[in-house]
Amino acid sequence: MRVRSVPYRGFESITQPVPMGHEYCGIVEEVGSAVKNIKPGQFVVGSFFASDNTCPNCQFGYQSSCMHRESVGGAQAPLLRVPLADGTLLATLDIPSADLIPSLLTTSDVLGTGWFAADAANVKPGSTVAVIGDGAVGLLGVLSARQMGAERIIAMSRHEPRQKLAREFGATDIVTERGDEGVARIMDLTHGIGADSVLECVGTQESMLQAIHSTRKGGYVSYVGVPHGVELDGGELFFAHVHLHGSPAPVRRYLPELIDLVLKGQINPGKVFDLQLPLEQVAEGYRAMDERRAIKALLRPEGDSTDGKLDTEGS
Amino acid sequence: MRVRSVPYRGFESITQPVPMGHEYCGIVEEVGSAVKNIKPGQFVVGSFFASDNTCPNCQFGYQSSCMHRESVGGAQAPLLRVPLADGTLLATLDIPSADLIPSLLTTSDVLGTGWFAADAANVKPGSTVAVIGDGAVGLLGVLSARQMGAERIIAMSRHEPRQKLAREFGATDIVTERGDEGVARIMDLTHGIGADSVLECVGTQESMLQAIHSTRKGGYVSYVGVPHGVELDGGELFFAHVHLHGSPAPVRRYLPELIDLVLKGQINPGKVFDLQLPLEQVAEGYRAMDERRAIKALLRPEGDSTDGKLDTEGS
Repeated sequence: MRVRSVPYRGFESITQPVPMGHEYCGIVEEVGSAVKNIKPGQFVVGSFFASDNTCPNCQFGYQSSCMHRESVGGAQAPLLRVPLADGTLLATLDIPSADLIPSLLTTSDVLGTGWFAADAANVKPGSTVAVIGDGAVGLLGVLSARQMGAERIIAMSRHEPRQKLAREFGATDIVTERGDEGVARIMDLTHGIGADSVLECVGTQESMLQAIHSTRKGGYVSYVGVPHGVELDGGELFFAHVHLHGSPAPVRRYLPELIDLVLKGQINPGKVFDLQLPLEQVAEGYRAMDERRAIKALLRPEGDSTDGKLDTEGS
Repeated sequence: MRVRSVPYRGFESITQPVPMGHEYCGIVEEVGSAVKNIKPGQFVVGSFFASDNTCPNCQFGYQSSCMHRESVGGAQAPLLRVPLADGTLLATLDIPSADLIPSLLTTSDVLGTGWFAADAANVKPGSTVAVIGDGAVGLLGVLSARQMGAERIIAMSRHEPRQKLAREFGATDIVTERGDEGVARIMDLTHGIGADSVLECVGTQESMLQAIHSTRKGGYVSYVGVPHGVELDGGELFFAHVHLHGSPAPVRRYLPELIDLVLKGQINPGKVFDLQLPLEQVAEGYRAMDERRAIKALLRPEGDSTDGKLDTEGS
């Protein structure tokens, strides 16, 4: 099948030319002969990993480890091919209104990933939560923790626009310190106990250790950024006494719930898009994010910005 | 307070003479002036970490990280001093009969640790479980998984007496292969999916990787042996997609439940003691375990073997 689309985020390491973008939503243009449930004309959202949604791993809710998993790439284009369409895509009943498109787009990755981070860190009503990382995923981890009933949400951020959005999404405290100083601040704020749940949304050795050391004994650390050069000492982990869970987020598991929350107007995660650009200005989108002029950029294909009906996006 | 006692297991590394033994039960001889609830004459069981059982970490069920934690050592002696007696010890209503003493002794460490391994690996009714390590902790991990309703329990063991006890405790399958071959066998037995829960009861790099690779996507790995030279690669862990939880077992959390199961005759974990010796033959107990002539030895202080009333043990 083919979905008219626009993507948004670069791959982790690039050694040769690759089609860019893996966060998308849009109107179905065409489906392959094996596709049964997805129809042309439907508005759909999918994840960055295609999944059949029927294999044992999918049934357990780990669609990002589907036994027939394929990467979805190249969404920064007018059209995108999505494999395993019936399993990968979720179609809405109607074509959503234009103002909901940015929020729906986030369910495809950054919201799904932030939501998984909160879920994997066992956030419950009344929890004390710390979020490490103030990118779109971290900010939406804050929103997710709030939705799950966290009582206290400590956002680690040193950028004013992101702090502001974190507060809007539900952060109760902002910590600007990092590393050991950041840990000390979390310990101060939690009376020396540590947070129940810590969402590690960066992926470095420093942020991982900061997460582990900020967690109370028996608490939960989730990590959703692809780890770069992270080595964990077994003995240290043993005496830290934490639960650890992380992986490429199984976004597909959460799509029904998250799309429903967006369509009902209960959450507005699309606020992470503080820059909108036409598709051909994609390079400026990356530049703005790299220079911290934008939290996240949304790309619209040509002829798509006025009615929003055929929107399919990225950055 | 002082408890007449005998211990059982050596410390991990010994650089100077140390009092040996940290698994114990016995009759209270004397209590300090600050002790309120524990009384002389009571039969008590405690854990290898003394805990106040009131601090936030204890309230969360992580008594082995009590904010006032102290190591209990030197139980291989006629008398043992146990700090924080009110928090650390659990007293039975009556003096238990002699035949229950070995099983009650296991609740102090090896059963408590095996039980934590199964709990930390999220064993539920119907689970498929693999247990790596056929020492007393691994064998009691099998028993614990069975109690928690596991449907299938795969014990990794290449020693006939241990295989036999594993089956008696509830193992449905025995795997003799180790490392990658062991992983391949688990994958065969689980139709290529992996186990829901894997209990890592050894503590080496090989056994930890074996555990991670034997677990299904989204499954649970627990580890309860102090890790020796274990280094985990963040990226590998990320794509393995498992939950990871381990630590010195918070045995105190489980004592009420485990002692109750023993007193009601629902479990017989004392079978791991296949050698009983008088205290003065402690060296022979270690030798027998080291040479695999015994799974686990139980030591009895002088004048203690006939009526069992003043039993306090170890090996």
